Amino acid sequence: MTLEAALRRADEASDQALETLKKLVAQPSVSTRNEGVQETATLLQEIMEAAGISTRLLPTGGQPAVYGEIAGPPGAPTVLFYGHYDVQPPEPLEPWHAPPFEPTIRNGRIYGRGVADNKGQHLCHILAVRAWREAVGELPVTVKFLIEGEEEIGSPHLADLVRVQRDLLRADLVYTSDGGMHPSGRPAVYFGVRGLLYVELEIRGASADAHSGNKGNVLPQPAWELVDLLHSLRGPDGRAAFPGFYDSVRSPTPKEQTMLQEIPFDRQSFLSEHGLDESSISDGADYHRRLTFEPTFNIAGLASGYAGEGTKTIIPARAIAKIDFRLVADQDPDAIFEAFARAVAERNPSAEVRRLAATPPSLTDPSLRASETVIGAVRDSRNVEPVISALGGTLPDYVFTQILGVPSTIVPYANHDEQNHAPNENLRLDCFFSGIRTTLHVLDALRDLPAKDAS
Amino acid sequence: MTLEAALRRADEASDQALETLKKLVAQPSVSTRNEGVQETATLLQEIMEAAGISTRLLPTGGQPAVYGEIAGPPGAPTVLFYGHYDVQPPEPLEPWHAPPFEPTIRNGRIYGRGVADNKGQHLCHILAVRAWREAVGELPVTVKFLIEGEEEIGSPHLADLVRVQRDLLRADLVYTSDGGMHPSGRPAVYFGVRGLLYVELEIRGASADAHSGNKGNVLPQPAWELVDLLHSLRGPDGRAAFPGFYDSVRSPTPKEQTMLQEIPFDRQSFLSEHGLDESSISDGADYHRRLTFEPTFNIAGLASGYAGEGTKTIIPARAIAKIDFRLVADQDPDAIFEAFARAVAERNPSAEVRRLAATPPSLTDPSLRASETVIGAVRDSRNVEPVISALGGTLPDYVFTQILGVPSTIVPYANHDEQNHAPNENLRLDCFFSGIRTTLHVLDALRDLPAKDAS
Repeated sequence: MTLEAALRRADEASDQALETLKKLVAQPSVSTRNEGVQETATLLQEIMEAAGISTRLLPTGGQPAVYGEIAGPPGAPTVLFYGHYDVQPPEPLEPWHAPPFEPTIRNGRIYGRGVADNKGQHLCHILAVRAWREAVGELPVTVKFLIEGEEEIGSPHLADLVRVQRDLLRADLVYTSDGGMHPSGRPAVYFGVRGLLYVELEIRGASADAHSGNKGNVLPQPAWELVDLLHSLRGPDGRAAFPGFYDSVRSPTPKEQTMLQEIPFDRQSFLSEHGLDESSISDGADYHRRLTFEPTFNIAGLASGYAGEGTKTIIPARAIAKIDFRLVADQDPDAIFEAFARAVAERNPSAEVRRLAATPPSLTDPSLRASETVIGAVRDSRNVEPVISALGGTLPDYVFTQILGVPSTIVPYANHDEQNHAPNENLRLDCFFSGIRTTLHVLDALRDLPAKDAS
Repeated sequence: MTLEAALRRADEASDQALETLKKLVAQPSVSTRNEGVQETATLLQEIMEAAGISTRLLPTGGQPAVYGEIAGPPGAPTVLFYGHYDVQPPEPLEPWHAPPFEPTIRNGRIYGRGVADNKGQHLCHILAVRAWREAVGELPVTVKFLIEGEEEIGSPHLADLVRVQRDLLRADLVYTSDGGMHPSGRPAVYFGVRGLLYVELEIRGASADAHSGNKGNVLPQPAWELVDLLHSLRGPDGRAAFPGFYDSVRSPTPKEQTMLQEIPFDRQSFLSEHGLDESSISDGADYHRRLTFEPTFNIAGLASGYAGEGTKTIIPARAIAKIDFRLVADQDPDAIFEAFARAVAERNPSAEVRRLAATPPSLTDPSLRASETVIGAVRDSRNVEPVISALGGTLPDYVFTQILGVPSTIVPYANHDEQNHAPNENLRLDCFFSGIRTTLHVLDALRDLPAKDAS
């Protein structure tokens, strides 16, 4: 059994695997301030080459992406592993128990910035390939890697890169390991993510804040204008009240509704985690439908005038709102932005609308053969039924489903309490080693997938 | 001529006067965060004692008030000078050309937090008394001072203090110099002020900010609740939309309407000072009616979540609004607060309403003999007809008109572009010296006022 041999080899190499992870995490790669990013790309190439993967850097106009490839048998299907080697800034530093770029093992977890998001996860893919090659030789499928260095700043060049490198990246399935497993401890397979449109609204009044007594009633009031404008953009039901927002939103299919009902939901944990009372969310299917099949219209921030302690009697000169929309299939951030900007202009022509970020949503059909193969491999590797769902958060998954036109699955390997983007980010060691084993199961299972678009 | 001698003495002492002003402004006294307030009271006592005024601190339960007294001839009338030695916070600091507590002279103006509001103005009263004493000896009237340390936080203890010290403070006229002269450059005499009710609204959601992707659509949204609540409290005409607010508001009398029409209004200066376009305010009488006979419903501050540079994708855990109402005769802040809190509770029972400050409005009859004496003295000191009006801003003038039962006039000494409550607060040097001279004219003119209630 080739899979058995590869699994054994991965077990034998676990000390070496942990050393490699430490080395990768010890190398800072903070893309938002260009700290150590190129060095990390080089280190990653070394690690991949040591696994027998041919690598090269793909220029993007920003930070380079690391591309890797290792051919399987002629006519075999191709899997493209996506990941990112850049990390969030480690700040605030004070709450960290150990320096963020000195990986430390405590209580069965390895701590460090980027260890879970996402160095420790794409490394599972690389080390699985290495174990297979060392134990068996030829891989059962052709494997490609695309590991970018700009995910934490919104992947500004990824879409163009995928467009330009369409032939190089051709595959039958894209496989990403990022984020945390289900809070129940069960593995999860996600078949889509919500998109994101982030906008800023600004309304200006007089040229400076003014005394609310000496000028009250005779100056513009941007804070009130912002309140009125925002209110007019949302209905009493909490839904966006401007035309076009829901045009492309589709209801869950019967199959998807069944899927939603099967996702575990620990209501008490949810309520106590967020300090909510019994009147909140009552139903798991409703909870998951809202999170994965409904778009959001969230105010992420409001600011105007003085909001500190005590009183300050001013008429603010400006008012700001930060708004993020999470988008679901088949909403298009460009179209939504246009509809939003038009609605704002109709209501208050003096309001400025700035677009700060945009990522389309993605969706892959879970009943595709490739999807079912992944679900089966995850089930076999963990001996438990995976949770099948879509992600409420946002990843640039659309570049694969929409631009490359390939099914894409997301199988998180990290513990759900990984603390990504926060101090004391960590990856449970058992999650790391299970991730390598699950990747081996996936490689093995994919060999039977028809290669309809392989290079 | 005793007045002439006192005026000459004031001129001779102008360098010393400026040094005293600098010293007073250099001492921070930010009442809202209890910064340097007691030290300023002590410094003020030293300055008053050096002017020959007997002083003592009056305890209030909060910051002490500085009381001063200097007796005139037996049977002479009494004038009570009111002022405040506390100042607004200097923030934001960035726009200041020089540190706010390092008074700096540039282009004929002295800059610093509190220099105009109100240290440089009550100092004119003190220095006028000093000049009179040094040049002439006995004052023509009995003079009392009440200079409090809590005006910028809404004078929470002043009413009780005046009630308790009614005998000590007995006077024939209260005289306050605060605010700016008329924008036309003409002096002004004000016979009333708008009141103030300052409230804070807070709405809470989950126990902490949450990820807007992973939790978008399943958590409470306090920012949206605040927007909806605020919107519901105000009509499309910009007027308060809750019952009771306008019940006690009265229209200007024919005499007051005439007064409004006589107030000069330089529309172009107003527009350019505040960076407004031609579509704003077109009519002077309307401008002044709005400022003095209409209440306001102003949002002084909004805050929720993240409003800095760039994007942060969170569902805020709380949202805050700071609201100030300017009230006109005969609105009662207690009744308005009750009406507001009731309206909020009906619309969103989970919103918290906190009352941060409340001051009733005031009104003095401009045709009283004391009023006409002040108008005459101001006219004589400046050789120009003063503008007669009421103040759009708020001073705790009601404690004199309602509690002490004494006529009260407000004669601003600062330039109208003093930037009070804003960065680069300043006082024109000529305004400062004219203020001392006008006070001397007032002291001289009041000697003929019948002392009907003097101590």
